[in-house]
Amino acid sequence: MYNKPVLVSIIMGSDSDLPVMKDAGDILDAFGVNYEISIVSAHRTPQRMFDFAKTAYSRGVRVIIAGAGGAAHLPGMTASLTGLPVIGVPVKSSNSIEGWDSILSILQMPNGIPVATVALNAAKNAGLLAIRILSTSDQKLYEAMMAYQDEMEKSVIEKANKLTQDLSSTN
Amino acid sequence: MYNKPVLVSIIMGSDSDLPVMKDAGDILDAFGVNYEISIVSAHRTPQRMFDFAKTAYSRGVRVIIAGAGGAAHLPGMTASLTGLPVIGVPVKSSNSIEGWDSILSILQMPNGIPVATVALNAAKNAGLLAIRILSTSDQKLYEAMMAYQDEMEKSVIEKANKLTQDLSSTN
Amino acid sequence: MYNKPVLVSIIMGSDSDLPVMKDAGDILDAFGVNYEISIVSAHRTPQRMFDFAKTAYSRGVRVIIAGAGGAAHLPGMTASLTGLPVIGVPVKSSNSIEGWDSILSILQMPNGIPVATVALNAAKNAGLLAIRILSTSDQKLYEAMMAYQDEMEKSVIEKANKLTQDLSSTN
Amino acid sequence: MYNKPVLVSIIMGSDSDLPVMKDAGDILDAFGVNYEISIVSAHRTPQRMFDFAKTAYSRGVRVIIAGAGGAAHLPGMTASLTGLPVIGVPVKSSNSIEGWDSILSILQMPNGIPVATVALNAAKNAGLLAIRILSTSDQKLYEAMMAYQDEMEKSVIEKANKLTQDLSSTN
Amino acid sequence: MYNKPVLVSIIMGSDSDLPVMKDAGDILDAFGVNYEISIVSAHRTPQRMFDFAKTAYSRGVRVIIAGAGGAAHLPGMTASLTGLPVIGVPVKSSNSIEGWDSILSILQMPNGIPVATVALNAAKNAGLLAIRILSTSDQKLYEAMMAYQDEMEKSVIEKANKLTQDLSSTN
Amino acid sequence: MYNKPVLVSIIMGSDSDLPVMKDAGDILDAFGVNYEISIVSAHRTPQRMFDFAKTAYSRGVRVIIAGAGGAAHLPGMTASLTGLPVIGVPVKSSNSIEGWDSILSILQMPNGIPVATVALNAAKNAGLLAIRILSTSDQKLYEAMMAYQDEMEKSVIEKANKLTQDLSSTN
Amino acid sequence: MYNKPVLVSIIMGSDSDLPVMKDAGDILDAFGVNYEISIVSAHRTPQRMFDFAKTAYSRGVRVIIAGAGGAAHLPGMTASLTGLPVIGVPVKSSNSIEGWDSILSILQMPNGIPVATVALNAAKNAGLLAIRILSTSDQKLYEAMMAYQDEMEKSVIEKANKLTQDLSSTN
Amino acid sequence: MYNKPVLVSIIMGSDSDLPVMKDAGDILDAFGVNYEISIVSAHRTPQRMFDFAKTAYSRGVRVIIAGAGGAAHLPGMTASLTGLPVIGVPVKSSNSIEGWDSILSILQMPNGIPVATVALNAAKNAGLLAIRILSTSDQKLYEAMMAYQDEMEKSVIEKANKLTQDLSSTN
Repeated sequence: MYNKPVLVSIIMGSDSDLPVMKDAGDILDAFGVNYEISIVSAHRTPQRMFDFAKTAYSRGVRVIIAGAGGAAHLPGMTASLTGLPVIGVPVKSSNSIEGWDSILSILQMPNGIPVATVALNAAKNAGLLAIRILSTSDQKLYEAMMAYQDEMEKSVIEKANKLTQDLSSTN
Repeated sequence: MYNKPVLVSIIMGSDSDLPVMKDAGDILDAFGVNYEISIVSAHRTPQRMFDFAKTAYSRGVRVIIAGAGGAAHLPGMTASLTGLPVIGVPVKSSNSIEGWDSILSILQMPNGIPVATVALNAAKNAGLLAIRILSTSDQKLYEAMMAYQDEMEKSVIEKANKLTQDLSSTN
Repeated sequence: MYNKPVLVSIIMGSDSDLPVMKDAGDILDAFGVNYEISIVSAHRTPQRMFDFAKTAYSRGVRVIIAGAGGAAHLPGMTASLTGLPVIGVPVKSSNSIEGWDSILSILQMPNGIPVATVALNAAKNAGLLAIRILSTSDQKLYEAMMAYQDEMEKSVIEKANKLTQDLSSTN
Repeated sequence: MYNKPVLVSIIMGSDSDLPVMKDAGDILDAFGVNYEISIVSAHRTPQRMFDFAKTAYSRGVRVIIAGAGGAAHLPGMTASLTGLPVIGVPVKSSNSIEGWDSILSILQMPNGIPVATVALNAAKNAGLLAIRILSTSDQKLYEAMMAYQDEMEKSVIEKANKLTQDLSSTN
Repeated sequence: MYNKPVLVSIIMGSDSDLPVMKDAGDILDAFGVNYEISIVSAHRTPQRMFDFAKTAYSRGVRVIIAGAGGAAHLPGMTASLTGLPVIGVPVKSSNSIEGWDSILSILQMPNGIPVATVALNAAKNAGLLAIRILSTSDQKLYEAMMAYQDEMEKSVIEKANKLTQDLSSTN
Repeated sequence: MYNKPVLVSIIMGSDSDLPVMKDAGDILDAFGVNYEISIVSAHRTPQRMFDFAKTAYSRGVRVIIAGAGGAAHLPGMTASLTGLPVIGVPVKSSNSIEGWDSILSILQMPNGIPVATVALNAAKNAGLLAIRILSTSDQKLYEAMMAYQDEMEKSVIEKANKLTQDLSSTN
Repeated sequence: MYNKPVLVSIIMGSDSDLPVMKDAGDILDAFGVNYEISIVSAHRTPQRMFDFAKTAYSRGVRVIIAGAGGAAHLPGMTASLTGLPVIGVPVKSSNSIEGWDSILSILQMPNGIPVATVALNAAKNAGLLAIRILSTSDQKLYEAMMAYQDEMEKSVIEKANKLTQDLSSTN
Repeated sequence: MYNKPVLVSIIMGSDSDLPVMKDAGDILDAFGVNYEISIVSAHRTPQRMFDFAKTAYSRGVRVIIAGAGGAAHLPGMTASLTGLPVIGVPVKSSNSIEGWDSILSILQMPNGIPVATVALNAAKNAGLLAIRILSTSDQKLYEAMMAYQDEMEKSVIEKANKLTQDLSSTN
């Protein structure tokens, strides 16, 4: 896997976001997609954010996953500095107002610059969305996604069957 | 353009969503990407939604844009029936509760099935996000996106210059 | 009781909803109404949901209770696939935004397909609503419901009396 | 139709709710179900509400539809005074806070007394829910509901086909 | 004190509200105003609520304090059944949606029937408001309230002085 | 009437609140209670507010009705400067955030200083609450309030009867 | 005035914000403080925003007023690129969710980078806050602000007097 | 440092706000700016608030930081009594409604009296904003602020580098 190019870049505004954001990396690992992961703060390292976003395409990155909490400007600012698809993950940080601040700061981008927003703390879904995006030009990845969904389906059905057995053995 | 394959499918839950959703088509036209546009209601035509989503990949579609209002289930259900990236557009329909219902119904997908949500009524950004997704494997499209962003930048600067002139001529 | 038909079907999107949803079953047990309980995920097992909902009436089910969290599509999608009354239970799951997402995803159904929504986590009330619905054609069940409400009334009055005694013995 | 018993009672807190609530009556008319419609205010005519709710079952009513705005107590109080299923319609009245007050006042009933809440201003869905409830013991009504849903499906597909034709004739 | 009439009646929808509501009684005790305290549920004991409210004035009660959670109908229904001032205390019960449901159910009363709403869980302020109301015709009570406010003022100033001392001794 | 003392003082933060607040005066007129009405701004005339509140009791005022929009500090500050009952009316001013700002600024007073908050824009209910408060020591006023409520009841029943007639004449 | 340095810079994300933002300029004019006004979009002209913010201090600017709507990143990003005080004005743009998105995007800045947020659309208050900030080192400006507040007080008292006259002439 | 004048005054409505508000003092200490810190309650010590605010300028104070929870009137009332810049810190107190009450009570000030509002519980940013305000006339302070921001930037980059190392050593 180490010879594969880095296709996905996972960034976050603070190291306190890491426990949430590592779920995105786990999904990419599971699908065998190479990624980088780093801390880029829109407010504390604006120049680093500029440089990161401006060079991402030429470094081979094809999808950016950006997570941030509170007044979360990282996903939207990154999207304004590149033409790549940027997936925004609202993170429910401490002192957040129930997550509303990060959701609205990421979701409500003005016309011209889109961010692909996923659910609160949903870094796992951000990883899966990155796979879906890459699979638009990689049939094997698409097939892997379909297999993943089949697996989920089986897992739910197994749980349902087990629940039925548990309930009938109780009666 | 008519020989190009249909890469993007724009669907919406009701014909009343068309005034909002046509903005997505205008963007795809501007970038020369072929698309189809249709009405698919999760609640009133569930079988049609199933058939549509299950066959989208094999028909050559690579990105789905789905808009809906109120308890908006179309984007999420479509995403559960395909492995393609699905972009959800919350539409502020009549009797919507200020748009919160469609935003949360689309955004807050459970782990396993992502929807790339854009801002309320932001079909234009949905179109731009589709272009960004397709550009991950199409360098010309990426360059067109960068040109589009340069154009936006120029347009803002022109407006800024005009404002400066207007103000100085007033004084 | 085992010879009675299954009149109520309790479904939920995830086994994590079970601690909430079992309250519905307890009520049905108390009223002697047979039910089935299972896991049906709109997003992870869409085909199972289709099959379940399409066959519910012919299997003898007369009321469906569906609980789900987050972007909760199970109650509304089930209602679109059957003509039976569907009771929706918004479940406050982890990463839910204080329950608003599941409430609005279930409540704000578009015209044409109703869902009978109860309060957040109120599976007990879902069970009681199912009894009320079945009692429209079963006078004994109606009388049992009236007796249940009388019992509640007595229980509150007993607590009130006990409170009065406690307070006067304190003084 | 005039010899049929009155099975559904539509009540509302104020005559200003009538433009919203009459949609419930239109649905019941369409399905040939007899109903009564009246004004019953929880706050301005509490005794009338008591008498109405206490006698509804013995008068032959089997489903109550209650609409109200603001601090909407009519649906919940009616449900506490009868064992019949009560469908609550939150009405977005003037000076309402975007409808949130009536939604929460109706939806968030405590354990013991359920109200089947539908979407904001969704009297039409209240009528359809009443039909679904009555159809649990009336197979012809169930078949009429399935036919109604088929009709909706056809209507959406026709609109979709028309949209496709309009778009191709434009190009 | 036991020969004084009962001027204030404190009622609550459930014994689970008692830990919050007893603060109102503590205030009334402190001001030497006699009160009764009991459980009256709008939904589980509607007849009791009717009887309680209809007889309150003739029993000598002059102010009613009513606390309830969720879809809190007790304060408003009580106000509709009496001409006395009713103070509503929104209680943040379990499964409440952050208290919004009880606040809006109590506050947003329609024109004609007012409820004097205090802050979430603010039974202490409900007690103080009852004193203020009674003091409109009882000068000694008014003077006691002014003394209470003077006491509060002194207490804050003492804390402020202590803070200043603590900080200067730290430096 | 002109020889009666001024018992109620209606104040508001801005003359733009007058169209809402005059409803309180109309109610007081209808009940024959004398009142004064004036503009007192917490933020633009803080000294005037101090003087007004500090002298209200000695001028014979027994209830204060205070209306304000946005960050509405007038009701709470007035309550902190007097021992009289203060009724707060949240006014939905322009640039208000749907009225939430004035509601929360008035309602959520800290322990020690209560404000009797009524619904958004509900100056009419503020007037009725003032009457209820004054009636705690004025039996004739209490009887007038009971007559007012009887009148409301009759008016609703008349409307209900008219609706029944209209509907039967239509059929 | 034209020889005075430009001390305040008013920027906004779009020319559609101008009708709101010009109120800030009017206040600065009234206090005789020189300012510049321009369009700087965080998302459409990120480089311009960088250059603007990085050079503001050396150009003599001492306070920046930044207005933006939706996911409003301009005030926060500007604050991260300068050490000057930045006043953020949330603008209620079209497709905004009642202004909540711009308020939270501006207000909820993470620790380290503050934005001085004013009320929704409150560009006038932004101008007044800029004057207060500049007056910390300019006693004449402080005196002008005190005179401005005296003027407001007088204006309210005049309106109050006029209201009293109007009401007494009506009676 | 003790010979320097007190330039900043930190006040709060209750000693329970101290754990939040002391962060402002820590920042001022770090920048070597002298401050006072005290308890001033708008509702429990209104006269103290008046005296405090009216004399602040003449005592040499140039910036006021005011923190309060619930219906937080302290920042706005203080701003109405002085011409100094007032920074408002919404504090999420117990019984607060998720902080919304204090945010809106502080932020939504009417035209004429501005409050510089920072994020929920963000006393640290209030301290930094005070420094920025004072630095408009103190170049050394401005340079200290720029150095502080450089330090933050370095700290993030170090954390980012450490993360990269940790991840590569794990692989």
